[in-house]
Amino acid sequence: MHQTNLEPALLAISLSRQSAEPLQAQLAHALRTLIDRGIAPPGARLPASRAFAAELGVSRATAVAALDQLRAEGYLASRRGAGVFVAHNLPDAPDAAPRPPSPAPPRAGALAPPPPTAPRPFHPFEGGADETLFPYRDWARLLEKSWRAPDRAALCAPDPFGWPPLRRAIAAHLAAWRGVEDDGAPIDPARVIITAGAADAASLIARAAFAPGGAIALENPGYRPTERRFQAAGLAIVDAPVDANGLDPERLPTADGCFLTPSRHYPLGVALPLARRRALLEWAGAAAAPRALIEDDYDSEYRYEGRPIPALAALDDGAHVLYLGSFSKVFSPTLRLGFLVAPARLIGAFADAIAADGPQASLIPQPALAAFMESGGYAAHVRRMRRRYGERRKALIAALQVTIGDDLKPAPEPSGMHLVCRFSPALAARLTDAEASARAAEAGVSARALSSFYRDPGAAPFQALILGFSAFETAALEAATHRLALALRP
Amino acid sequence: MHQTNLEPALLAISLSRQSAEPLQAQLAHALRTLIDRGIAPPGARLPASRAFAAELGVSRATAVAALDQLRAEGYLASRRGAGVFVAHNLPDAPDAAPRPPSPAPPRAGALAPPPPTAPRPFHPFEGGADETLFPYRDWARLLEKSWRAPDRAALCAPDPFGWPPLRRAIAAHLAAWRGVEDDGAPIDPARVIITAGAADAASLIARAAFAPGGAIALENPGYRPTERRFQAAGLAIVDAPVDANGLDPERLPTADGCFLTPSRHYPLGVALPLARRRALLEWAGAAAAPRALIEDDYDSEYRYEGRPIPALAALDDGAHVLYLGSFSKVFSPTLRLGFLVAPARLIGAFADAIAADGPQASLIPQPALAAFMESGGYAAHVRRMRRRYGERRKALIAALQVTIGDDLKPAPEPSGMHLVCRFSPALAARLTDAEASARAAEAGVSARALSSFYRDPGAAPFQALILGFSAFETAALEAATHRLALALRP
Repeated sequence: MHQTNLEPALLAISLSRQSAEPLQAQLAHALRTLIDRGIAPPGARLPASRAFAAELGVSRATAVAALDQLRAEGYLASRRGAGVFVAHNLPDAPDAAPRPPSPAPPRAGALAPPPPTAPRPFHPFEGGADETLFPYRDWARLLEKSWRAPDRAALCAPDPFGWPPLRRAIAAHLAAWRGVEDDGAPIDPARVIITAGAADAASLIARAAFAPGGAIALENPGYRPTERRFQAAGLAIVDAPVDANGLDPERLPTADGCFLTPSRHYPLGVALPLARRRALLEWAGAAAAPRALIEDDYDSEYRYEGRPIPALAALDDGAHVLYLGSFSKVFSPTLRLGFLVAPARLIGAFADAIAADGPQASLIPQPALAAFMESGGYAAHVRRMRRRYGERRKALIAALQVTIGDDLKPAPEPSGMHLVCRFSPALAARLTDAEASARAAEAGVSARALSSFYRDPGAAPFQALILGFSAFETAALEAATHRLALALRP
Repeated sequence: MHQTNLEPALLAISLSRQSAEPLQAQLAHALRTLIDRGIAPPGARLPASRAFAAELGVSRATAVAALDQLRAEGYLASRRGAGVFVAHNLPDAPDAAPRPPSPAPPRAGALAPPPPTAPRPFHPFEGGADETLFPYRDWARLLEKSWRAPDRAALCAPDPFGWPPLRRAIAAHLAAWRGVEDDGAPIDPARVIITAGAADAASLIARAAFAPGGAIALENPGYRPTERRFQAAGLAIVDAPVDANGLDPERLPTADGCFLTPSRHYPLGVALPLARRRALLEWAGAAAAPRALIEDDYDSEYRYEGRPIPALAALDDGAHVLYLGSFSKVFSPTLRLGFLVAPARLIGAFADAIAADGPQASLIPQPALAAFMESGGYAAHVRRMRRRYGERRKALIAALQVTIGDDLKPAPEPSGMHLVCRFSPALAARLTDAEASARAAEAGVSARALSSFYRDPGAAPFQALILGFSAFETAALEAATHRLALALRP
């Protein structure tokens, strides 16, 4: 093991309290740079966090948070009793893959670490896929293969609905994974539209499936960013009340359509019961003009016990449900690709809506993604992630039990990418979830308050924190749970 | 030369008059499939268009249009007096590159020709880059290289303004090509924001640079799709009158900002004189709150004689001009990447605007594009295209002169990707440009009427057709000119 003396390099780290960037992020960035440049080589040991913090003139919490972050990113490793070391398998060389002989200096064109202008840190318990587990080598090969000698016609006049083979692959995936079929066969790929993600899909849906000035019901609590897009597109927003079983069709207000998360309510995590699904489909068909049910099936792939629940679209006769799928939860939000399945009756309206601005999704990743799906690589990755995230979920539940005990009780739904952790009466008497969330943020932990998902935070039926587990290794989840416990102390 | 008998295969082509897809597109697709499957091998001769049309039961114009399209796409070649043949260098194997031994069946994952659900045909004189000339092999290699082993931190928390090295490369490019600098050095990359193209940029600008309900002046005539986006974002649209020298600052209406194309007015093609630029900058600074000048520098790279005119942003003190750049005109609209340069005073407002929906641009192509720009490959490609498009421009001018003569007179500006062809008094007496455009469309030729760019088509000061030359080879331009001449005949 190296016994490199890192002290001079660490002392040279300069942090600015005037910067808009938090000290912790500055520190993490500086450490990453030292490691990437080989100044802190693999195996080099870092000082204990207390000494480290003192040397740099920051609080120990800041130092711990920066070290935890780099550990979660794979830059650092720790051994019990022996301290923290620069990792031997640095992030730019995945463990399993053969490694070029001299990985130290960043290669031109490779994704080198971001420069000083760079982004916010990624905090434990934030949501999303673990992008570090994606099979990037395969993906890079598929990108190369698909663009080496592309078809001219497809480039000069690309299909505004997206790359056709990708749309076929999606139709096949939906039949196999989500029960979305047409007479036992995959749906017509002509109904599949590639989008640049949820915001793009919402803009298109507002124009294609609603009359100008129409009203859309959104789940409350629910995913607020979508609301802004529908509103910007000129729709009136009305609230669809949600109870412990999800959206309640009995209390659905007057509207021309409804946006919902039936497979796993966001953020409560419950699956909508069959009777409610049937009632919604009835509601959709009961008006003079068909109403639109927009099903956001955002993380349906991740169900850790039992069988996945078929999509609402699988119950529909193909006339009312607009199915929204995402690649963000499996691959990465950086892909900026999602898709929607439109009823046949709306295909023309979607074509018009897309013609107004042109397609917003980049074509660059589409052929590679189609090949990835066709080859089975995509399904294999989903299955691998399902196993891995299931383990992480269990690890977080265990860590919460050991470290925090009864004060935070995770909801039992064995699915998704986050836990809804309900406050004990004792904790709720001391703190609101918004206060708890603020304390966690100060400790470098991202724990969103359930009440923040309600239009009126006071309307939340209980206090809870939302903890994402999918993007972090077990050790990072445990460390973050520990910090959360400290932050919640009286 | 093969003497394959294609008649049975051609007779088997089935076209549907019930389909929404035009017969010409169906026919082009069917032919492409025959060629791709090797049923019509390289060298095979097609029947003369008259016989071909008769066999298929379509008009000769439809058959000719489909054949022309495939010729422009590189599937077919023709020799004077000898008819039309399947090309020897099929589109999926660029001439210069070494070719795998068995190119006939489409490779899994490669961009195979689109299936029957596929897109609109690409008609001669449509605008845009010639995507077939892009160095795809280099591009594919850069994609592979950049995603083989990406940096984890950059993926988990990507910069919402885009991939930082790409933003640095853009700042360097703007200094070198467009005179946009800050005290003689490239501008701060922190001011460069990667967008998903013009529509995304317009939405962000409306939110970041205008108060809700603000007014924006748009050139009339001008690029209408932008108008819809600004309107959708809640801005009031007012008309900025344009004369033969471009936007007239003297007649600028009351507004909080102005969107313009100073380097080359769209579609008139004129460059805004320096005095008008100065007057606009004065106007922008004369109000209590700074007004925004949004400079759309959409095809400034293509100037075939003389020196490029520096951007309006190069004259600005960095407070008023929002510079919009595009990669569509150099690379391809399929990339869905553009960028904007914001004044420093608006950086925070743009960060807020992007935070609302998240970034819309895919990260996938950004590192490869950064590497392409850093390596000089991008600049070299622009220079190659400038030479090539300059030749095509000359060829189209010559073809118009030979085939149509004085009836269509191209404007002299030696720049851009299209010609503005003004009607002679004799032609204008017979046809409006809208009528001429409709006749051209029937003949499979895309020739937009100048009047269609005016809010009130009757306000156009003269009749003209807009003919794009950049995306088509000389032979295709000549063939299309011939068809246009026939379509405009009395």
